[in-house]
Amino acid sequence: MTIDQTAKNTPVDPVDLTAQLVRCASVTPEEGGALVLLQGLLEAAGFHCTRTDRNGIANLYARWGAKGHSLSFGFNGHTDVVPLGDVAAWSCDPFGAEIRDGWLMGRGACDMKSGVAAFVAAAIDFVKDTPPEGAVVIAITGDEEGDGVDGTAAILDWMDAQSERMSICLVGEPTCPNTFGEMIKIGRRGSMTAYFTATGVQGHAAYPHRAKNPVPALARLVDRLASAELDVGTDHFDPSTLAVTTFDVGNPANNVIPAQAKATVNIRFNDTHSSQSLIAWLNAQAGAVAAETGIDIQMSAKVSGESFVTPPGALSDLVAEAVEAETGVVPVLSTSGGTSDARYVRAHCPVVEFGLVGQSMHQVDERVEVSQIHALKAVYHRTLAAYFAQPT
Amino acid sequence: MTIDQTAKNTPVDPVDLTAQLVRCASVTPEEGGALVLLQGLLEAAGFHCTRTDRNGIANLYARWGAKGHSLSFGFNGHTDVVPLGDVAAWSCDPFGAEIRDGWLMGRGACDMKSGVAAFVAAAIDFVKDTPPEGAVVIAITGDEEGDGVDGTAAILDWMDAQSERMSICLVGEPTCPNTFGEMIKIGRRGSMTAYFTATGVQGHAAYPHRAKNPVPALARLVDRLASAELDVGTDHFDPSTLAVTTFDVGNPANNVIPAQAKATVNIRFNDTHSSQSLIAWLNAQAGAVAAETGIDIQMSAKVSGESFVTPPGALSDLVAEAVEAETGVVPVLSTSGGTSDARYVRAHCPVVEFGLVGQSMHQVDERVEVSQIHALKAVYHRTLAAYFAQPT
Repeated sequence: MTIDQTAKNTPVDPVDLTAQLVRCASVTPEEGGALVLLQGLLEAAGFHCTRTDRNGIANLYARWGAKGHSLSFGFNGHTDVVPLGDVAAWSCDPFGAEIRDGWLMGRGACDMKSGVAAFVAAAIDFVKDTPPEGAVVIAITGDEEGDGVDGTAAILDWMDAQSERMSICLVGEPTCPNTFGEMIKIGRRGSMTAYFTATGVQGHAAYPHRAKNPVPALARLVDRLASAELDVGTDHFDPSTLAVTTFDVGNPANNVIPAQAKATVNIRFNDTHSSQSLIAWLNAQAGAVAAETGIDIQMSAKVSGESFVTPPGALSDLVAEAVEAETGVVPVLSTSGGTSDARYVRAHCPVVEFGLVGQSMHQVDERVEVSQIHALKAVYHRTLAAYFAQPT
Repeated sequence: MTIDQTAKNTPVDPVDLTAQLVRCASVTPEEGGALVLLQGLLEAAGFHCTRTDRNGIANLYARWGAKGHSLSFGFNGHTDVVPLGDVAAWSCDPFGAEIRDGWLMGRGACDMKSGVAAFVAAAIDFVKDTPPEGAVVIAITGDEEGDGVDGTAAILDWMDAQSERMSICLVGEPTCPNTFGEMIKIGRRGSMTAYFTATGVQGHAAYPHRAKNPVPALARLVDRLASAELDVGTDHFDPSTLAVTTFDVGNPANNVIPAQAKATVNIRFNDTHSSQSLIAWLNAQAGAVAAETGIDIQMSAKVSGESFVTPPGALSDLVAEAVEAETGVVPVLSTSGGTSDARYVRAHCPVVEFGLVGQSMHQVDERVEVSQIHALKAVYHRTLAAYFAQPT
């Protein structure tokens, strides 16, 4: 979409905007022209825009209306995309935005350039047609698919420093497993990975009493961890899960007791736990096995995100009603799936996520139905209208 | 040593003979000229020699005296040697048989060309000086360090077919840990290795209920196996031991539950068990864990040797008295250590092992004290004399 003054009074076409974004080769963490495009469009529509880049990561903050207003509706999304994978396996140009049989094809078509295009288009049309009493905020990062530490987190840090605010936030990630409209995400489980290293004393397999074998000790630990019931689930979450993902020694000699063994455990946890409480539990379990066996067991942990939930209420009702009105589908409220930038936003304000069907995300021939991009814009527009039409 | 008719009445020098054998590059399974050399020497001394080669492995059978005599004293040994390892790390020519500061240097100097030289020299001198009523048998293989299936086993098969016999057998392997004379081996533990493969269903770490994780199941099994007390030892054996030597998955993805895990267990077992009874036990343990977890666990086993013992008695007394008389050391009777060809001989006749200090065997700069080669020949000579001097 070119910023054509003569077209200012026509609605923004979210499919055309999605296509323009797909043509920006913004493989994470490349900006690829995507944020520059959006900034031009939003400024032309009266949004005040700031690039809140950090450590080379491009981020865009846009606000229409008064700074810090108590009625500030926020949208969050990202324009970076995952790498192409096997380029030869694509049946189309991954950056071509070809429309084929009613589908828009290309990397990021689904995750989540269509979502960004839909909320940008909805926001521009809404503030132009029915200027609200309040503010509309748009926070878009160029680093959600990478480490993420300088993406949405950087925008939120900048907002705090500038006293910018969102009262509530809707993240435009794909949330529907199969049918458009079927699922709103109101939270996510936390995710962490623990790395264990058990160290003993190498020796000859014929004389185990002269060695200290770390393998059975680590085996006992992972069996216990995998057998433990972390919880039985909570009001909004399934039970937490723990998976032992690998266990490695790499000793080719049958007559040698090895000195070291390593194992990795991945935990998806609900609001019964925090990463800190789990790390304490894991260390206690490792310490107990170490005490029983005399084997040193060290642990390090990498936390991908804490669990969080925005309990069902005003925000989820607002979105669910808009979804049902536009699609005829009553969405379920879920906390399933992996992480998203909602994990950062939730510290700032209530946050839920709603977007398209995510089936093709991260795959070759990523695609989205053209009709659903229009429908998503309509859901977002209706949500905005409902938010500013009634006190929240 | 050249077969010099003029030297027939002088004793055989076991150090010189060891040196000649070291100069034969008989890295297993190469004959390297070693057995040819010994055959010439033994035939010149009146031994009836037969090459009992099988499947390309060279073996030498030599008998002085009547075939099948009820007083047939046997010696067993091997002339093949292990590979050199890091050649650059040697401070001498590994096949040079250099004598340095009272030590004879070279691959096989210790394990066990000196032992072969000592019993060949002792046997030749003994039958020449005091021709016994009975037979002296020498069985030497060129494949003890390799697979061994066509070595001493082939000689014994041939002996059975030819009605050749040994009434008792003394194996000349190095048996002394530190001091010459301190240990006679009267048996060995059995050795076997079990390979476990646990197979489940791969899946996403966030949804363990959709996968079947083989890692905790295999971990439970190896913890149980390592925690089990196999026995408390027997009259002549220490307790059996079990060592988990490796456990491998090789999954680099923290968000993936792997489909397969493998572990290896090495068991050294006494006469409480056989490899068959242990395989049955291992399968039962694996089956129990499979039933608890729903994970398929398959096992294969490789048996290196069964346990065996020649209980203390006439044979060990005979050797022990010779050792004490020559060295002043009272030897202990042990079943420690790895396997030797005694595991084959024990099915034919009572067998014990006595030889030099084994510290440098299989190492670079393998070496043996020159004085101990002479002492070993003296022990063997005294053993022969005692055996034929009294009814056994």
